[in-house]
Amino acid sequence: MSKMTIVAVDAMGGDNAPAEIVKGAMEAVSRSKDIKVLLTGDLQKIEPILAAGNYPKEQLTCIGTTEVIETSEAPVLAIKRKKDSSLVVAMKLVKEGKADALVTAGNTGAVLVGGQVIVGRIKGVERAPLAPLIPTAKGVTLLIDCGANVDARAGHLVQFAKMGSIYMESIMGIKNPKVGIVNNGAEEEKGNALVKETFPLLKANKEINFVGSAEARDIPSGDFDVIVCEGFVGNVILKLYEGVGATLISLIKKGMMSTFRSKMGALLVKPALKDTLKTFDTAEYGGAPFLGLNGLVVKSHGSSQAGEITNSILQCVKFNEEKINEKIKVAIQKTEE
Amino acid sequence: MSKMTIVAVDAMGGDNAPAEIVKGAMEAVSRSKDIKVLLTGDLQKIEPILAAGNYPKEQLTCIGTTEVIETSEAPVLAIKRKKDSSLVVAMKLVKEGKADALVTAGNTGAVLVGGQVIVGRIKGVERAPLAPLIPTAKGVTLLIDCGANVDARAGHLVQFAKMGSIYMESIMGIKNPKVGIVNNGAEEEKGNALVKETFPLLKANKEINFVGSAEARDIPSGDFDVIVCEGFVGNVILKLYEGVGATLISLIKKGMMSTFRSKMGALLVKPALKDTLKTFDTAEYGGAPFLGLNGLVVKSHGSSQAGEITNSILQCVKFNEEKINEKIKVAIQKTEE
Repeated sequence: MSKMTIVAVDAMGGDNAPAEIVKGAMEAVSRSKDIKVLLTGDLQKIEPILAAGNYPKEQLTCIGTTEVIETSEAPVLAIKRKKDSSLVVAMKLVKEGKADALVTAGNTGAVLVGGQVIVGRIKGVERAPLAPLIPTAKGVTLLIDCGANVDARAGHLVQFAKMGSIYMESIMGIKNPKVGIVNNGAEEEKGNALVKETFPLLKANKEINFVGSAEARDIPSGDFDVIVCEGFVGNVILKLYEGVGATLISLIKKGMMSTFRSKMGALLVKPALKDTLKTFDTAEYGGAPFLGLNGLVVKSHGSSQAGEITNSILQCVKFNEEKINEKIKVAIQKTEE
Repeated sequence: MSKMTIVAVDAMGGDNAPAEIVKGAMEAVSRSKDIKVLLTGDLQKIEPILAAGNYPKEQLTCIGTTEVIETSEAPVLAIKRKKDSSLVVAMKLVKEGKADALVTAGNTGAVLVGGQVIVGRIKGVERAPLAPLIPTAKGVTLLIDCGANVDARAGHLVQFAKMGSIYMESIMGIKNPKVGIVNNGAEEEKGNALVKETFPLLKANKEINFVGSAEARDIPSGDFDVIVCEGFVGNVILKLYEGVGATLISLIKKGMMSTFRSKMGALLVKPALKDTLKTFDTAEYGGAPFLGLNGLVVKSHGSSQAGEITNSILQCVKFNEEKINEKIKVAIQKTEE
């Protein structure tokens, strides 16, 4: 019998909180018997939503909190001052071992600060990276780090490569995942100072399957399973991915509506196109795991609807069952010896 | 009467050389009486293409060269050794003042090295940036630097902002162009060490219209006229732009061909969609100017067809007539005083 996974869920974080978060949590416990959700937030707002829903009551417990960290708040100050916020209380549940994981769609900065300060890093992990799955022509690729750390050093990137490989192998079932480093050219002599220092370290590392430089134009084609970069560049990649996709799709929709003839055509292509574009929607893959912490923290998009929250919660079960953090501990300590 | 602009064209550079390059040159001189082209390359290959074309002969002169720098060659060595290559000879024409500008679709690395070493930088310009126009929902944005320099410093980025502003104002006719810096968040306290150092310098500079941080997701929406970043990040942005666009368009085409119904629809939307997607095609805007050199160097895509070469050559006329380099000289020296 598999062990129960306990997931703390920040009911007040995100643009659509608490309604979509609570709905996502109800759906998750309805789908899997192996999950218990601890929902932190304003009980007066949460309870009516729960009362209207149908779900296994014994798998969901509410924990009342009185404060909310807003999207616009300065992260460090918010984490320090709002001790009774839905996010901080949920993080403490993970810290104290009362929950295995946390799912939140709240203030990204606060999640990153709280992850390091409250939940804490695994011993030996120097920086904890945020690692979303991004859609490609062939499936998904793990982009690590997409913004948890700026000005990272070569040693950090090597740890990112290991953690990302463990994640893709254990969670996504990809044997010997191909690791690339974001570079400004395919040749080995290319790169800025950081990449030039990191490249030989990755190449020499026998625990990962390093296949070389990933030019940005090749990221969407899906030739890499894990793409390593420092957080500033990763943040640019993630956000540009979303930005170019959204702009292009809106231009295409506008183009299709521009003539009578194209409007007729649009009606015909719509169903097929909807399925295609769904595969390129980052929300389909749940939230981004914040790896290397004492427990799993999953950051969902601020705009998350119930479906993404459900996916993020379900993702925690596999993370827990596959003992990702124990594998990370072993891999990191192996290098340190 | 406007002065003649003399453009050296590297007939042997690029995937489609020399045929498409020569055709592009013939078209450019056919379209404008104000251009004279000096075509460098293998005469045995160029002359038959010219013989088959119809163009004003007095506006196009061939200069025979015996060597070609291949795409795969190491740039520094190639520039040093292949003195009689079509690229090096064309660059020397600019250096010696025999041409105002150079257009090439050849080895990017060799163009960047040769630009600095042979053509040389304007006095006071510390780094010469490559600055392509990228398509947005509202038109185009100048991305500066997109890969000529990695590990740039704050002072370099300030020069890039000035050169980019001059270009957009003089060439694209945008009054007081809005300058943004690529950042990992919209707030002023965001950024890596380089951005944090550069931000206040741009903010304090009265010669540019600095409007703040550009998050990568906002680049395609077109709210900035000039987007400043160091070359590694710029290279990632440019290539990801092309990569995401190409992948998404190919997925959409595949989606449209997936059912009988959608195939019928595709036939109807095709003409309207073609126009829309054209606005998002980077090749439509000619090559990328390599700014801050003693003369203009324009780098066209390696995959350039005749049309892009023609656009790149025509672009040199405006650059020359608007005296961009004299404006850059004045702006750079003003800061140095």
